[in-house]
Amino acid sequence: EVSNIDAQTSHKTTTLPGLINITSFIPSLDDFEASTKASLAAGFTFNAFLPQTLSGTTINDFDSLVQAIDSASAGAYTDYSFSIAGSDSNAVGVLEANENAGALFLPFNDLANSKVSAISSHFASWPENKPILTDAKTTDLASVLLLASLHNRSIHITGVSSKEDLDLIRMAKDKKLQVTCDVSVYSLFLSKDEFNLPFLPSKEDQLELWANLEDVDAFSVGVLPYLIAKALNKNIVPGLGFMEALPLLLTAVKDGKLTLEDITAKFHDNPAKIFGIPKQDATVEIDLDRVVRSKDSPISSIFSALKLQGSIERVSFHGETACLDGSILAKSASGNNEVV
Amino acid sequence: EVSNIDAQTSHKTTTLPGLINITSFIPSLDDFEASTKASLAAGFTFNAFLPQTLSGTTINDFDSLVQAIDSASAGAYTDYSFSIAGSDSNAVGVLEANENAGALFLPFNDLANSKVSAISSHFASWPENKPILTDAKTTDLASVLLLASLHNRSIHITGVSSKEDLDLIRMAKDKKLQVTCDVSVYSLFLSKDEFNLPFLPSKEDQLELWANLEDVDAFSVGVLPYLIAKALNKNIVPGLGFMEALPLLLTAVKDGKLTLEDITAKFHDNPAKIFGIPKQDATVEIDLDRVVRSKDSPISSIFSALKLQGSIERVSFHGETACLDGSILAKSASGNNEVV
Ligand SMILES: [Zn+2]
Ligand SMILES: [Zn+2]
Ligand SMILES: [Zn+2]
Ligand SMILES: [Zn+2]
Ligand SMILES: [Zn+2]
Ligand SMILES: [Zn+2]
Ligand SMILES: [Zn+2]
Ligand SMILES: [Zn+2]
Repeated sequence: EVSNIDAQTSHKTTTLPGLINITSFIPSLDDFEASTKASLAAGFTFNAFLPQTLSGTTINDFDSLVQAIDSASAGAYTDYSFSIAGSDSNAVGVLEANENAGALFLPFNDLANSKVSAISSHFASWPENKPILTDAKTTDLASVLLLASLHNRSIHITGVSSKEDLDLIRMAKDKKLQVTCDVSVYSLFLSKDEFNLPFLPSKEDQLELWANLEDVDAFSVGVLPYLIAKALNKNIVPGLGFMEALPLLLTAVKDGKLTLEDITAKFHDNPAKIFGIPKQDATVEIDLDRVVRSKDSPISSIFSALKLQGSIERVSFHGETACLDGSILAKSASGNNEVV
Repeated sequence: EVSNIDAQTSHKTTTLPGLINITSFIPSLDDFEASTKASLAAGFTFNAFLPQTLSGTTINDFDSLVQAIDSASAGAYTDYSFSIAGSDSNAVGVLEANENAGALFLPFNDLANSKVSAISSHFASWPENKPILTDAKTTDLASVLLLASLHNRSIHITGVSSKEDLDLIRMAKDKKLQVTCDVSVYSLFLSKDEFNLPFLPSKEDQLELWANLEDVDAFSVGVLPYLIAKALNKNIVPGLGFMEALPLLLTAVKDGKLTLEDITAKFHDNPAKIFGIPKQDATVEIDLDRVVRSKDSPISSIFSALKLQGSIERVSFHGETACLDGSILAKSASGNNEVV
């Protein structure tokens, strides 16, 4: 571990590379500035945006992708990319758009009828060098893993939240299938024991996720904070879930459940490798001992029982101090659209 | 082709091995005598019975399996075996019964909740040398193929009736997965164009089945004739579907759509290999030119438009002429329970 002692406070400090969130959710295409500022302040300097917004699947062809990139370019305080959503019938459409997309996202609940044919046609046509990710679970997960294997494709599974699914992914990895996965930070800290919500893991499943973190390639923020906020009647604001993500993990480091290397691997190195994200000029300086005070995040109160320890002091990005103690100093929206 | 000319009638004749039906359905456990007599008269000398009857899944543990074998033994005019049904929770129960079972059958519609875990636990515990078959389709089919592959298991898919599923099986075979499949004879001759029933293939799918018969390992009779009879308000009687099966295929031979070797391969050699069925002392002598007259089968009227050509003259079984021109001559129920 690379950590130093702050001479004045005798607090331990460390520097991480700028974090990468591979499943960033924006409420609407108007929210790039607020979303990327929130993520920057939270230590995330790359946002790989999902193709959905609160209005549903928004990015699913060339025009909608280009419009999203356009909307983002004026207000992006982090680097970014967009994935494009594959549907039952748009394998040709997404193929046309592939050069501008970070990845192909296969949202399983959107695939109504002939999932096998739809997934197969995407696997057959989407370029080999561009990533594919999916939120498939249980039987659908098994199905998509078979199809990936039959088409010799790598596939990333996002938002794993059950022992059953993680077991399946582990078995597939053991069989040399090219599969990677991420777990939402929030699935690691909230379970049905805290809030009985269908999208949260059972406590048993959550413990299994912790016990098998070596099978988890990446952490993510994703859509879960929005689902939680909505279910608990909290405000839906851009950037939900970023602020608490790193402090939650750093508190787990303090508790000996995780190492700083785990955070670097799962929130930077592996995401960069899996999604082919170019090396960024970005670092995050962290004070590991400072207690995070309850801030004005709509969901921070959810964790009021936890004393979150570990605070972001400085985020450097594109050659400047972009954020200091939570305040954005970056003079302009210098984030770039970066795709493979 | 091994065919001779009948001197008296100048009809072509041929002799096939006794046919094996790998998915025999009995309306109830009282119907073994009637079912096996009907199948014997139709040229089938081995019945691998499904674990379901009209009352639903009937054979799913040691007791119900032994009771079925008991009921069958007194009245079986063919050799036979039973498969046992795997459920969400009976992996241990079916394992106890495995020595008396011909195969493990995984009925996908019965698996409600956690299909992946259920199938995985069956694959992990069911003995390597005993067959597993399933009626899984579409996404469930892809899922079960993955699990079979992860567990290094061979799996037989019964009742394939769509291009999509056959394509998936072909891709899996190309990738050296240990998968075999059968198509119901009735899916080859009835489509939604004739009767708009959910369990019949579309005409397009049916044409694809015909065009890709080289990917189909076996023919079967199965439960489809019962589903058709029920939907069309025909009488439900034991042995439904056997009588027409071979004449339908022989008519296709006449039409050049199939060879006698295909019938031997898919209704004897491959079923015997896939299900480990011991060599039987059984032959079927066929008159290829005799036109089959409309008989008293509740479903034969369905094929009234077809001139069924090819008729069974004699079935020899266990050293005697067991059936001559449709009349059972066997003096006793000499069928044996034969399992691997
Ligand atoms: Zn400090
Ligand atoms: Zn392919
Ligand atoms: Zn980096
Ligand atoms: Zn950059
Ligand atoms: Zn004749
Ligand atoms: Zn296994
Ligand atoms: Zn034989
Ligand atoms: Zn015998």
